[in-house]
Amino acid sequence: MNMQSVILNFLPLNEQEQREFEQASGSYSQYFVGQITQRYAMGWKASLDDVPEDVRQQTVAVIGNIKPESLRSLPNLRWLQTWSAGVDAYLVPTVACENVTITNATGVYGQSVAEHMVASMWALMRNLPTYARQQSQQQWRDAGAAISPVGATAVLIGTGDIGSYAARLCKALGMRTIGVRRNAAKPADGIDTMVSFAELDSVLPKADVVLLSVPSTAQTHHLLNVKRLALLPEHAIVVNAGRGDAIDPDALYEALHSQKLRAAALDVTEPEPLPEKSPLWNEPNCLITPHVAGGNHLKETAEHIINIALENMRRFAAGEPLNNRVK
Amino acid sequence: MNMQSVILNFLPLNEQEQREFEQASGSYSQYFVGQITQRYAMGWKASLDDVPEDVRQQTVAVIGNIKPESLRSLPNLRWLQTWSAGVDAYLVPTVACENVTITNATGVYGQSVAEHMVASMWALMRNLPTYARQQSQQQWRDAGAAISPVGATAVLIGTGDIGSYAARLCKALGMRTIGVRRNAAKPADGIDTMVSFAELDSVLPKADVVLLSVPSTAQTHHLLNVKRLALLPEHAIVVNAGRGDAIDPDALYEALHSQKLRAAALDVTEPEPLPEKSPLWNEPNCLITPHVAGGNHLKETAEHIINIALENMRRFAAGEPLNNRVK
Repeated sequence: MNMQSVILNFLPLNEQEQREFEQASGSYSQYFVGQITQRYAMGWKASLDDVPEDVRQQTVAVIGNIKPESLRSLPNLRWLQTWSAGVDAYLVPTVACENVTITNATGVYGQSVAEHMVASMWALMRNLPTYARQQSQQQWRDAGAAISPVGATAVLIGTGDIGSYAARLCKALGMRTIGVRRNAAKPADGIDTMVSFAELDSVLPKADVVLLSVPSTAQTHHLLNVKRLALLPEHAIVVNAGRGDAIDPDALYEALHSQKLRAAALDVTEPEPLPEKSPLWNEPNCLITPHVAGGNHLKETAEHIINIALENMRRFAAGEPLNNRVK
Repeated sequence: MNMQSVILNFLPLNEQEQREFEQASGSYSQYFVGQITQRYAMGWKASLDDVPEDVRQQTVAVIGNIKPESLRSLPNLRWLQTWSAGVDAYLVPTVACENVTITNATGVYGQSVAEHMVASMWALMRNLPTYARQQSQQQWRDAGAAISPVGATAVLIGTGDIGSYAARLCKALGMRTIGVRRNAAKPADGIDTMVSFAELDSVLPKADVVLLSVPSTAQTHHLLNVKRLALLPEHAIVVNAGRGDAIDPDALYEALHSQKLRAAALDVTEPEPLPEKSPLWNEPNCLITPHVAGGNHLKETAEHIINIALENMRRFAAGEPLNNRVK
């Protein structure tokens, strides 16, 4: 028999899932390196350090986000399946290999991030973070008026997987949704009305809630600045789970502290982690979560990634075109 | 002209609403005693102390929960519209007046209590109370796995206005719902499967979430006791916004502290307020809110009460049968 062709599989699988991958992989042999204990960790780890040199030589495919630099230490590699949505690090010229196909796990994080955003919004509508903090002081004290999602308007800045999923959740709770994206002619599930970024300032005054899920670009840097925060009604709630620098943190603090804004929930901050000296830590109407909206904290996310990889495994073994191909 | 017939109106109305009541009241004259500043207070107040003796003599109807004992100080009273759902205090023989019709505001608190329950459930699924408390110590620290409502099963103990509304919210988030009520043959909106209290123990093992909205009765006292809490899966979340004594607080603390239960949200406690010495205050997986789920914290609740009273005002003036009549 010739040298084996090996699939290096870093997914944190249980035994039944390992059997499914073995069945799907045809004549390829699976080399399982993943640890099931990692399953619900925020991020999964994949390192070639645990892989013997002879196995590296035999490796034709990798499932998992190994270090981009290590691609070149796998001379027979033909396919990389990432568990991330982003694959930019594998595409830079110094690491990219001509003959390696790359497929990603786009779309799997939408549910988790969107659920975190809408749960945070609703918690702030009901003053739950305030009650949680009062509880530490054994305080039984009414924190005042609450807000219902019914009939409220959400402005979703960014309407990709995350924004669209969040919009559908908002609508399920009885809200109206306005989406903001580069091309307003392109619709998205869950969005009642779509506008372009050029129209952002005209929709902010209608927002009871603003949900941000934009990537970090020159265009989105400090998108919510002093001027735009001032366009929001005083009862508005801002939620950011995209990239921290989409909001000017000083402007946000000023707006919250002077009660020009009801509340904010930040799963991402600028910079990250939020510095100890940031006044946002102690702002009572700000809820800070440490970039945990995404990742693999939901079992559904892990299952979704595993299903994408399993189907591509079957396709790879059968010589069929792969899903989610980015290169 | 004869002695005037006066409606004593304790609702916290704005000027436009006052005009609407005046228009609806035909030949009756409205005597407005409510304060708009009370509008979003947890509970509204109504006292005859602010009403001159001659007006009391002329009063034929009252809108508002005056003290039950003061009914007899209004000799010409014919109708009482409460802003509460419960009217028991007005029906006891020592205060009830033969010739006074009583109408209530049943159903208006369902939305607020149900939204509070489901928002609390979701906040616990995403560890938000833990993050809010960590924030006080400037801690940027991952609190671990989260749960999605999608596909999870809610057991709703009590399926009246509140339970049914909560069930519909759960379904909107992708959950399955099992209702528990005295008469399982009687359906309720939002409930997929209804069972009787006799079957409670058989459905608890299926519960990812238990939502309690039962009144305090001999049958519901410590309904969730050591034995029943032990029937729940370890990842289950318990939410109580009915009456505090539906849960044995010692048993709940033990279950939470020994991690036999993921988390609990209590808007009602036994006793109330929760005593300073209760270990539940410092239990990290318990969220305590000070009986604020209901009341008038949502503007929708106030508007709903005002609309019920306004329609009954019109009916009273027109001699038509009143809505929500309890006596």
